[in-house]
Amino acid sequence: MTKNASPSYTLAELASLLNATLIGDGERRVCGLSTLTDAGPDDIAFLANRAYAKHLATTRAAAVLLHPEYAEECPTPALLLDNPYLAYAKLSHYFDPLKRDEASVTDVHPTAVISSDVTIGEGVFVGANAVIEAGVCLADGVHIGAGSFVGADVSLGARSYLHPNVVLYHGVIVGASSVIHSGAVIGGDGFGFAHDGAQWHKIAQLGGVVIGDNVEVGSCSSIDRGALGDTVIGSDVKIDSQVQIAHNVHIGEHSALAGCVGIAGSTRVGRHCLLGGGVGLAGHLEIADGVQITGMSLVTNSISEAGVYSSGTGSMPNGLWRRNAVRFKQLDELSRRVTRLERHRD
Amino acid sequence: MTKNASPSYTLAELASLLNATLIGDGERRVCGLSTLTDAGPDDIAFLANRAYAKHLATTRAAAVLLHPEYAEECPTPALLLDNPYLAYAKLSHYFDPLKRDEASVTDVHPTAVISSDVTIGEGVFVGANAVIEAGVCLADGVHIGAGSFVGADVSLGARSYLHPNVVLYHGVIVGASSVIHSGAVIGGDGFGFAHDGAQWHKIAQLGGVVIGDNVEVGSCSSIDRGALGDTVIGSDVKIDSQVQIAHNVHIGEHSALAGCVGIAGSTRVGRHCLLGGGVGLAGHLEIADGVQITGMSLVTNSISEAGVYSSGTGSMPNGLWRRNAVRFKQLDELSRRVTRLERHRD
Amino acid sequence: MTKNASPSYTLAELASLLNATLIGDGERRVCGLSTLTDAGPDDIAFLANRAYAKHLATTRAAAVLLHPEYAEECPTPALLLDNPYLAYAKLSHYFDPLKRDEASVTDVHPTAVISSDVTIGEGVFVGANAVIEAGVCLADGVHIGAGSFVGADVSLGARSYLHPNVVLYHGVIVGASSVIHSGAVIGGDGFGFAHDGAQWHKIAQLGGVVIGDNVEVGSCSSIDRGALGDTVIGSDVKIDSQVQIAHNVHIGEHSALAGCVGIAGSTRVGRHCLLGGGVGLAGHLEIADGVQITGMSLVTNSISEAGVYSSGTGSMPNGLWRRNAVRFKQLDELSRRVTRLERHRD
Repeated sequence: MTKNASPSYTLAELASLLNATLIGDGERRVCGLSTLTDAGPDDIAFLANRAYAKHLATTRAAAVLLHPEYAEECPTPALLLDNPYLAYAKLSHYFDPLKRDEASVTDVHPTAVISSDVTIGEGVFVGANAVIEAGVCLADGVHIGAGSFVGADVSLGARSYLHPNVVLYHGVIVGASSVIHSGAVIGGDGFGFAHDGAQWHKIAQLGGVVIGDNVEVGSCSSIDRGALGDTVIGSDVKIDSQVQIAHNVHIGEHSALAGCVGIAGSTRVGRHCLLGGGVGLAGHLEIADGVQITGMSLVTNSISEAGVYSSGTGSMPNGLWRRNAVRFKQLDELSRRVTRLERHRD
Repeated sequence: MTKNASPSYTLAELASLLNATLIGDGERRVCGLSTLTDAGPDDIAFLANRAYAKHLATTRAAAVLLHPEYAEECPTPALLLDNPYLAYAKLSHYFDPLKRDEASVTDVHPTAVISSDVTIGEGVFVGANAVIEAGVCLADGVHIGAGSFVGADVSLGARSYLHPNVVLYHGVIVGASSVIHSGAVIGGDGFGFAHDGAQWHKIAQLGGVVIGDNVEVGSCSSIDRGALGDTVIGSDVKIDSQVQIAHNVHIGEHSALAGCVGIAGSTRVGRHCLLGGGVGLAGHLEIADGVQITGMSLVTNSISEAGVYSSGTGSMPNGLWRRNAVRFKQLDELSRRVTRLERHRD
Repeated sequence: MTKNASPSYTLAELASLLNATLIGDGERRVCGLSTLTDAGPDDIAFLANRAYAKHLATTRAAAVLLHPEYAEECPTPALLLDNPYLAYAKLSHYFDPLKRDEASVTDVHPTAVISSDVTIGEGVFVGANAVIEAGVCLADGVHIGAGSFVGADVSLGARSYLHPNVVLYHGVIVGASSVIHSGAVIGGDGFGFAHDGAQWHKIAQLGGVVIGDNVEVGSCSSIDRGALGDTVIGSDVKIDSQVQIAHNVHIGEHSALAGCVGIAGSTRVGRHCLLGGGVGLAGHLEIADGVQITGMSLVTNSISEAGVYSSGTGSMPNGLWRRNAVRFKQLDELSRRVTRLERHRD
């Protein structure tokens, strides 16, 4: 695929696409999307965060997406909407040259290795050197990137998209319109071993992985298959890069997991949860709907109420930290000393 | 490979395979393995954790693997054993349809790219588009997954198994019956650079990686080659997904590393150690045999005695955490204040 | 490639190559590089860390690289230099058999899939089953490992080196002499979604990734493309394995990131920074030049001054840790109790 000429749209077209109120010249044409500070005179910009409102006065943008409360301050033509960040998200796809190129790419590359009993829908793309094993079902519009491996009996829903060098082990089920980035591995064995007092015995991982619709899995993330029963990723779950999801974990719909999150076996995360980068969840926990956990927190107990949870210490200069960290090791003792002082006072 | 019909076994057969004492009808046939709560009437279940004993009364399973102490409570036929979890591990392989399919797959795919001076044993499988470089030695029964890369002079022991898209750099040695999951990279350069005051100079990583027998390496994990001398993974070591093992690390036999563990260069971990998920070990440490480290702990000093070690704080609601984390920064000062109060009291 | 016979050099040759002062027999020939303790009688060793000086007396090495201050203690021929570690780094490449083999490997493998409009310089190597998309530009001496995917319009500078199974998404730019290890994914989508109150809407990631000269990226690391504008990795930045760099991050020249580091979106790390293993940086931060952050620290605020920063608690036996961690949850309350005691005293 090569880059197309830049797309361009009139402000009237965009107002119509986004269902926005247009202030200014609807014939003005924009051919790029940018931030308030980086925008050139042919770009449309957006204001979605109050902290950036100060850049409105000096932006060179042709037009700005913003909330009606900023309409008066805006020195350029404006598209007014209640949720400018959402409008930016929608608009971003109109300025993605790749999107439009790929719509026409629906071939199976001659070097792809495809078993004889594979079901392939309409408009499917299979890239160079991809390997598709027996029993696989690719629904309409599926895209299999070059060098990806799709194991036996995998099912991919309509328009689901594997970037290059993804691996799906046998039997993995992916819903419609889900996206898996390169290097991700779905369905590898869960980490299950029994100890006989001297050595480990592997437990065959007999379950699978079931991924819903509109899920995104980032680069180099791994989602392990279940031991008995499946690992389940609900629809509209968004998973960033370098995430590890162990066997039999369930992630509720609409939850989002930032980079480097690790979730141990059999833990259930609710719906609409947000896990910050590097968060670790121990195994066999229940995390309620609507829980947010801040970055790099470790959670070792179930959480039954929505809310924001944290662990750890803030960072500080190393000299101060060393002194405080030593005191942490004496903290129980310190607490007892305070109790003794209180008794003495009374 | 396509799924075989489900396997089925009589309870008498299973009692014999597992060396268990059978209570009930030996002719009863089971065709699946499940948990006490999920089992259907044709499944065998197991009780390995006291917390689940309450589900015994209501299980629909055809039979249950359990310890003799539960024999009387068990409403179904039972197979009695001292270590039901181990029995479950063994039994799991009898219910793995893949295992049996693959026994017959021992071909070299025509798209695999294999150098002329490669030694290939009996019953070796090489998948589509795999690349095997010169000087490689594949012992009997080795399985190389599709798209995997096996660098020059690599040696793979009997029945060792690479899943698709694994990379072994030149000279890596893997023992017998070891399993490497997809996306894992073994033998990449260790992170070694010397600084000249202005910029970095790479140190060629001249060592290798030596992996013992019965080792498992999870998806997307990386084990770097040594700078001088080898990185060494002892036999029966189990490594989960997303683990990073730096150059010249040694892991003693029978140790297990959960997901997202990171071990810095030249650290030596003893035998029978257990590292929880996300644990970090600094470089150049010695960790004794039998050490357990709980999840997400950072270890920056050697540990000379077996036992359980931890770091960090528990997680808590964010409002409470914020107040406590601020106090952590004042902890040394707080301790001094308490000392002053104690002096004043005396 | 197969191993060449071991290289060998006279001490006089090495002294000349390294610009070192030779003490002893310049005709003495060495054919290996090792540590003081592991060196055999044909090896040259080095002393770069004061802690190892005690091994000088008993080394079996043929010669030692060391600082002049140790010249008198050294029982063997010596090469004297101000920075023996740097000298070791330089010397390591003379003992790397691979380096020399690969100089002659400059072919495009017949199984590589290369689009018709790709620009290929002199002395380029493209491995088996690599896939190169349209518009790619490979400068002189570029090495593309087997099974790697190079997306449309990627540009690779002279002598840049991709190990097997690397993925570069469309439009990624890599400078000269940079090295990307296996399993690394550069240019995957940043983690950007807007919420409409009910579900997520993906934000097309329209930016790219720009990597400078002499950068190294470790195995299984991921660097995401920018949302608007690019993710930028400065020249001479060294990135270890399992690192996650989010969209629109900028890393200043000469900085080094150890394994498992995670950096959230839009954060800017200065020049000559050192991030320890597992460090996490929140998004939208500014980290000054010359900042060092110790292993597994979480940084949630910008850092404006060079220095060493840390977070977390040291590790300790679990029993002690449990008692202290409970007290951490009461730390704000404890501090208030001390304040009350102080008031009472006055």
